[in-house]
Amino acid sequence: MEFKISRDFIAQIEQLISENREKELQDLLHDLHYADIAEIMGDLDDSEAIYIFHILDSEKTAEILLELDEEVREKILRELSPKEIAEELDELSTDDAADIIAELPQERKEEVISELVDVEHAKDIVDLLRYDEDSAGGLMGKELVKVNENWNVLTCVKEMREQAANVQRVHSIYVVDDENRLKGRLSLKDLLTTSTKTPISEVYIPKVDFVKVDTPDVEVARIMQKYDLEAIPVVDELGRLVGRITIDDIVDVIKEEADKDYQLAAGISQDVEADDSIIELTRARLPWLVLALLGGFISVRLLNTFSGAMDNHKELFFFTPLIAAMAGNVGVQSSAIIVQGLANNTISGSLWRRLVKEILLSLLNGSLLALILIAGSHIVLGVSYELGLTVSVSLVSVIIIASLIGTFIPIFLNKVGIDPALATGPFITTSNDICGILIYFTIAKIILGF
Amino acid sequence: MEFKISRDFIAQIEQLISENREKELQDLLHDLHYADIAEIMGDLDDSEAIYIFHILDSEKTAEILLELDEEVREKILRELSPKEIAEELDELSTDDAADIIAELPQERKEEVISELVDVEHAKDIVDLLRYDEDSAGGLMGKELVKVNENWNVLTCVKEMREQAANVQRVHSIYVVDDENRLKGRLSLKDLLTTSTKTPISEVYIPKVDFVKVDTPDVEVARIMQKYDLEAIPVVDELGRLVGRITIDDIVDVIKEEADKDYQLAAGISQDVEADDSIIELTRARLPWLVLALLGGFISVRLLNTFSGAMDNHKELFFFTPLIAAMAGNVGVQSSAIIVQGLANNTISGSLWRRLVKEILLSLLNGSLLALILIAGSHIVLGVSYELGLTVSVSLVSVIIIASLIGTFIPIFLNKVGIDPALATGPFITTSNDICGILIYFTIAKIILGF
Repeated sequence: MEFKISRDFIAQIEQLISENREKELQDLLHDLHYADIAEIMGDLDDSEAIYIFHILDSEKTAEILLELDEEVREKILRELSPKEIAEELDELSTDDAADIIAELPQERKEEVISELVDVEHAKDIVDLLRYDEDSAGGLMGKELVKVNENWNVLTCVKEMREQAANVQRVHSIYVVDDENRLKGRLSLKDLLTTSTKTPISEVYIPKVDFVKVDTPDVEVARIMQKYDLEAIPVVDELGRLVGRITIDDIVDVIKEEADKDYQLAAGISQDVEADDSIIELTRARLPWLVLALLGGFISVRLLNTFSGAMDNHKELFFFTPLIAAMAGNVGVQSSAIIVQGLANNTISGSLWRRLVKEILLSLLNGSLLALILIAGSHIVLGVSYELGLTVSVSLVSVIIIASLIGTFIPIFLNKVGIDPALATGPFITTSNDICGILIYFTIAKIILGF
Repeated sequence: MEFKISRDFIAQIEQLISENREKELQDLLHDLHYADIAEIMGDLDDSEAIYIFHILDSEKTAEILLELDEEVREKILRELSPKEIAEELDELSTDDAADIIAELPQERKEEVISELVDVEHAKDIVDLLRYDEDSAGGLMGKELVKVNENWNVLTCVKEMREQAANVQRVHSIYVVDDENRLKGRLSLKDLLTTSTKTPISEVYIPKVDFVKVDTPDVEVARIMQKYDLEAIPVVDELGRLVGRITIDDIVDVIKEEADKDYQLAAGISQDVEADDSIIELTRARLPWLVLALLGGFISVRLLNTFSGAMDNHKELFFFTPLIAAMAGNVGVQSSAIIVQGLANNTISGSLWRRLVKEILLSLLNGSLLALILIAGSHIVLGVSYELGLTVSVSLVSVIIIASLIGTFIPIFLNKVGIDPALATGPFITTSNDICGILIYFTIAKIILGF
């Protein structure tokens, strides 16, 4: 069951801190999970969070450090000496320790590394720091259980007992040759159910999924999801086993990727949260608003060139927001479907077939909407038959063009290696606003002849 | 490494099917992962997919069935007799088998269940069918390894060898009392490193996270992510251990939830893919477009009531799409940040503080944008000073109101128990379009006095 952190609980903790009642605080926090303590620290002031951090057992603080929001962690790390940081890192697995070191300023990095006690652990961490954080190398940990293909089950079990002491969770037992090249795997089940004298070469499964150190993290996530893997070994250029990635790291990648696409679709250009500062939020939001404003300038210019229509057909201008909104909405729908399809690798068939399909789909949607529009504008709004026709024909045309733009811009970006999620949200609504208005007035000019 | 399915490969398979060269097809597919074969079958015609399914080994077909797109699976299941389906299900884990049975028509369900050979397996599957698919009970599987608190390590290992034979992946060993009530857990590491004579009661960890059968799936996902769990036990109302949920099922929940929010933000009201039929796509997209169209009617009416301004201030109308677009974009940004915050449980502080923050943020963003607008409209568009002022004041006001609407509608929906993601995308852009135009012309009327 989850522990619910109430405002009263936070208030109680703040009270105890202000009265410096260390013992009572320790008792209160003793049974809490480190994730809950990290969450509580995020709700406290900086000095209070640091106070809490200092009174906790060292075994808990390392895990808490890992769970904290990056900003809170940065503040706490600034309060600690390199030796104290190194002590925390000695408690963590290699990938988690490397992630925290990567966040430190350059000179502190080296000081902290030199203070690490366990030499093997330190070597592994330094090794991990080499890799790009968005690659398999940046995700992997060094903790794994591996056995030599030339051993038998008994030797394996003995060796594994030792190795397992350093590994938090045993996912799979990897089999390597004398050169440390990955040959296959043994399942835990095999270990539990095979006689101890059997040679490993007879029981191991030679087919094993793996990724290379430079495989991008989203690709690793896709492979692990597709093949339902809980852990995947990572090999270097020579096929040597250098680490493993577990599904919990992949959960974070999937979550981040989904959040990023969602934010791009909403016109937010970096990872922000509701509780971030106004400056950070502005930095994430303003660029897209400026883009929309510049698009707005273009639409003002466009309408200006059609201002001649105002004398005889002023109602035309009442419909511009409607046309622009429909163009924007249709474009966002189309681009979202394509961006998701590209991300999930579920798009098949040729571009021609997709073109035909989008046009048919838009014709169907557009015609139904045009019917509502004709009825509505005639009965409710009381506009002329001619204007109703103009707006309806425009609506269908605009919907077709908007859906084509929404579909093919992401496909094009993806082809040339740019994240297609960039072409969702404000980008699509703005370009479709402009196209929509242009199409609308061009058609109006043809039908009404101004 | 992942197997890449090329068009040539699909063409080769189609060729072999048309020439009925079964043996060569079997050889070609023999080394492929079932996820790859399922993907290939999705690219083939129905009859070709069914052909492939029939020539494969029965051990592979069960897993393939699971990986297939729902539509393809439905077609294949229709071709199979209840006995054949039961044979496939006997190969699957209880949760996967229950998911497939749940998709069958009612009378076939019973026929298939009556054909299941393994009685224990059948009982477990039937038990799982009782639970809501969006709850912990609907996610869990019955396969787990459990030991009695009164045993010693030796008895455990013996019992576990037997139990493990039915369990694909051993995540944790659960400890129960004589009444099957969950008492704690044993880690695999403990098993590998503890002497065989130790009584279980001495080594097990009494603190164990668990969920109840009726916990919603998104809540299970949140708990497992927060506490970094690879598996979580599920208990019934009396605390008895009834199943376990593994992280790979949670990955699907997270992915689905993120996809759903993304689609709602883009104005798509049910789970569709780019390759779905035109009818399905229309059903998902049209409702939001109708909503936007109705909103458009309101904006037409609004502009109509301000048509008196056209005689002296026709340029005002050129700026309506710009104002509407800015209102829409700001609203979507605000709502997206709040919806994500609500989903990730990272929103703290009172509503008042949030209100003040949103107003400050909008004032900052709005003022910067207004500066660009004044400069741009003066230099590039050459509008009058008065009009520039009108549009700028409106822009700042519209941005403030739009961000408040975008922030507080999702918060309100969440409070009353409606999915706040509904209030993103078209809903927010449409309501903000209308508010934006109303505010704009009201301010214009005050400043320009028409």
